[in-house]
Amino acid sequence: MKTDIQIAQEAQMSHIRDVAASVGIQEDDLEFYGKHKAKLSNELWDKVKDNPDGKLVLVTAINPTPAGEGKTTTTVGLGEAFARMDKKAMIALREPSLGPCFGIKGGAAGGGYAQVVPMEDLNLHFTGDFHAITSANNLLAAMLDNHIQQGNALQIDPRQIVWKRCLDMNDRALRNIVVGLGSKMDGMVREDHFVITVASEIMAILCLADDLADLRVRLGKIIVGYNFAGEPVTADQLNATGAMAALLKDAIKPNLIQTLEHTPALVHGGPFANIAHGCNSVRATKMALKLCDIAITEAGFGADLGAEKFMDIKCRMAGLKPDAVVLVATVRALKYNGGVPKNELGAENLDALKKGIVNLEKHIENIQKYDVPVVVTLNSFVTDTDAENDYIRRFCEERGCEFALSEVWEKGGEGGIELAEKVLDTLENKTSHYHPLYEDSKSLKEKIEIIAKEIYGARGVVYEPAAQKQIAKIEEMGFSEFPVCMAKNQYSLSDDAKKLGRPTDFDIHIREVYVSAGAGFVVALTGAVMTMPGLPKVPAANNIDVDGEGKITGLF
Amino acid sequence: MKTDIQIAQEAQMSHIRDVAASVGIQEDDLEFYGKHKAKLSNELWDKVKDNPDGKLVLVTAINPTPAGEGKTTTTVGLGEAFARMDKKAMIALREPSLGPCFGIKGGAAGGGYAQVVPMEDLNLHFTGDFHAITSANNLLAAMLDNHIQQGNALQIDPRQIVWKRCLDMNDRALRNIVVGLGSKMDGMVREDHFVITVASEIMAILCLADDLADLRVRLGKIIVGYNFAGEPVTADQLNATGAMAALLKDAIKPNLIQTLEHTPALVHGGPFANIAHGCNSVRATKMALKLCDIAITEAGFGADLGAEKFMDIKCRMAGLKPDAVVLVATVRALKYNGGVPKNELGAENLDALKKGIVNLEKHIENIQKYDVPVVVTLNSFVTDTDAENDYIRRFCEERGCEFALSEVWEKGGEGGIELAEKVLDTLENKTSHYHPLYEDSKSLKEKIEIIAKEIYGARGVVYEPAAQKQIAKIEEMGFSEFPVCMAKNQYSLSDDAKKLGRPTDFDIHIREVYVSAGAGFVVALTGAVMTMPGLPKVPAANNIDVDGEGKITGLF
Repeated sequence: MKTDIQIAQEAQMSHIRDVAASVGIQEDDLEFYGKHKAKLSNELWDKVKDNPDGKLVLVTAINPTPAGEGKTTTTVGLGEAFARMDKKAMIALREPSLGPCFGIKGGAAGGGYAQVVPMEDLNLHFTGDFHAITSANNLLAAMLDNHIQQGNALQIDPRQIVWKRCLDMNDRALRNIVVGLGSKMDGMVREDHFVITVASEIMAILCLADDLADLRVRLGKIIVGYNFAGEPVTADQLNATGAMAALLKDAIKPNLIQTLEHTPALVHGGPFANIAHGCNSVRATKMALKLCDIAITEAGFGADLGAEKFMDIKCRMAGLKPDAVVLVATVRALKYNGGVPKNELGAENLDALKKGIVNLEKHIENIQKYDVPVVVTLNSFVTDTDAENDYIRRFCEERGCEFALSEVWEKGGEGGIELAEKVLDTLENKTSHYHPLYEDSKSLKEKIEIIAKEIYGARGVVYEPAAQKQIAKIEEMGFSEFPVCMAKNQYSLSDDAKKLGRPTDFDIHIREVYVSAGAGFVVALTGAVMTMPGLPKVPAANNIDVDGEGKITGLF
Repeated sequence: MKTDIQIAQEAQMSHIRDVAASVGIQEDDLEFYGKHKAKLSNELWDKVKDNPDGKLVLVTAINPTPAGEGKTTTTVGLGEAFARMDKKAMIALREPSLGPCFGIKGGAAGGGYAQVVPMEDLNLHFTGDFHAITSANNLLAAMLDNHIQQGNALQIDPRQIVWKRCLDMNDRALRNIVVGLGSKMDGMVREDHFVITVASEIMAILCLADDLADLRVRLGKIIVGYNFAGEPVTADQLNATGAMAALLKDAIKPNLIQTLEHTPALVHGGPFANIAHGCNSVRATKMALKLCDIAITEAGFGADLGAEKFMDIKCRMAGLKPDAVVLVATVRALKYNGGVPKNELGAENLDALKKGIVNLEKHIENIQKYDVPVVVTLNSFVTDTDAENDYIRRFCEERGCEFALSEVWEKGGEGGIELAEKVLDTLENKTSHYHPLYEDSKSLKEKIEIIAKEIYGARGVVYEPAAQKQIAKIEEMGFSEFPVCMAKNQYSLSDDAKKLGRPTDFDIHIREVYVSAGAGFVVALTGAVMTMPGLPKVPAANNIDVDGEGKITGLF
């Protein structure tokens, strides 16, 4: 069986000029990065902004399991299937992070015959967006420490600095560091931390900004720390805003690549899905809606995190209205949720399926709370049986959802026709009455409780004393109208990763709350969130290589 | 008077496709980065590698002064002048570092009407080469710390780690840090340091590598530290080589941009000129020689550092043979060398000129030791008088050098015609018998003494005890055949920055010696070298901004 990178490298890619032309983009509006990548110019937006919007489809999934679900694969395959049906469709995905490529996870460009290409470029530097974010993030940090070094006119309290440096690398040794050692000329000593670039608030800002002007305004609002009087100090006060925005002037432009079947894909931005909202850029999604009849996008982790944040943060802020949601599951993952160990998932097991399908059931109910139609799809695997598939199909149909099998991993767009037909039928015959789950005017605690009870199915919310204080402080600072971005483990609907299926009788524990004032949301953490991954005992990097002609091996 | 960025932004740039066509490069061999930047494909090299070489001209300067000399400006203007004379010429320059743009220095793309463009892109992310180097550098650091974390099979001594992390940022707080704090899962505690990306050994390696295969071999030889037995540990032993090379697969390709007058310019690589060799990439210089009749390049700092390293490191390793050297001076800088304070340089002062011209004299003598013809040029300034110019002209002609005034800053290529004619005359009528200053087989101490006495004019060399030991260790490891890369202050021929003119009766003090095994040279430090700059009280970043259409202001 071929690996993903083998399939990707065998692809006969079209020149990106031709891919762009298929959705009416002229060469003059492209900024090429080689022959197979391009950024879309600011002028293109001005040309298309008054076009009517296409339909917006979100692809999300049940809670992730070690069995794998294939959300990106489904998104890519669905786009290709629409193209085969002569529908004008575009895909809008997140850019993968460089760090995990060298760790365990490998790349993120879909899989099998449903991938976006060039896969190696996408997983390495791509068009440099993440490097630009790293630079802007670290310029702000350098200007912050320099301000303290040069007299600290703003009276920044070194114990209350919240801005962290970042690198797009899995590097555990940088999680907790002390900077400024040496002589008087080498800075003020303080504790500091590096996060991976996707965890930088600037990543979230880039993805939520309407345009460069909005980006600049948001950057200026970033809170870097607090002064000795406890008042917030912002990037604007450090005079860092303009230079940061200058560093990001190209990063804000969406990137165009293609699928293995030459369907256009906008791949732009990639914030964490726990401490941030986990969606590709607003700019890319809006561009896809203006250029096509159907825009297909995805959101990080399962629907409890990804879809909730897509609906309550991204769509709310950007004025987007999703028309349908595709909810991805696999037979294996549902059986895993029903208690079957990973190495026994190959055998038919209807009892386990019945036990585990409650996870899917809860996600269906959740999406229906936003009044958006749901289509469930099963990403097929060779061990799935007809009895298992039929059971799931009936289960979905009884709950008012369309259902389709998907074989895009094995067959590309051809394997997604059944799903595309069901989605099309939904778009044409069911009306979305999308609304966010809660109103801006609710208090932060009310918002947290609504998400916890309505989406997670929790009994209630328990706040640590520190979190109580932080919420009071954030409301005092005037940020109570912000939506809440929940940082919760992705494996369970609860905040305990081991509780699979559809847990009940549990509380959600809020341990820490802080504001991302530039991004425009309040982050509520239910546990420790790892914002700087480490490398495993045998990193994937050990096996990555490149030959003299530039052909890469070992990236997956 | 217009600023450099105003002049640059008013430029009517040609599409880079047309600039490339002017030297016979076809579109298929270009990898575009927008409309005004392109990388040259590996295939282009295969097509042109058997072409005869053009003539190689190095532009260097007297010791730098606060008055400014204009080496890059002269290089750009000379290339433009050749183009006006219908000569097929290309320029090969270093890429500027991002960090200093936000500090004091501002950008580096020439000046006035002799600049390369797009100036903003060049000074910001350009084609991402430096970001790729940062990533490769920090991947090696992460794999090193991870190796120790995961059991330290190689028995790396944390006290003897020499590999440093890097960022392309002026950030003094990162000069001396402690990493690995926190719990057992957060790494092993040790002292660490960040350098600016241009100081990374990977930058020097990229610039000295013949091609991607050679780059890979050199990366593998990097010494990251020593084990408890005192033996070197390399990147190869950490299994990091392939992944690092994969990260650099595009960064090794030369970048093509243009001057204000559309002369093609290869701008590629930019290592420090103290702890590294300070020249653009071998790959770019060789490409320029294959594509054109005349390739004009430059080297960092004054001729005592830049030209010496160009001759003894770059040309030696790459098998290049320079045909002529252009030595840049200014009347103001020579008077400064003669003891005139910075604010009095506007007045005619022949006595000071006579006193200061010994600095120029020494550099002329030095270049003649390599048996390469010298052309001296004066970068004109409005306060220069005819008497001063005439004096310098006679001085040079008496020493067998051609002489020309240059007005490229004010007039672009038109202002460089006189210089270009003198260079052309030299190329046609004088023969270069280039040879390096010393042979590989000399001992490291002999090499250091030859450079100190022959180039700097020192009486002798004094070694600190630590440096003595380090030299013995390096020779024991088998690196005595390497050339020596001297890290000396750039302002004086001596190792005391205050000794201007042509100092005598001084010793050179060697304080530290280490090997850059991947780059292939031994670094000898005569004093503390700052490898991570800081930001000043009012950073240039405070005044940089970008408007909603992406137009940048305040970058200079």
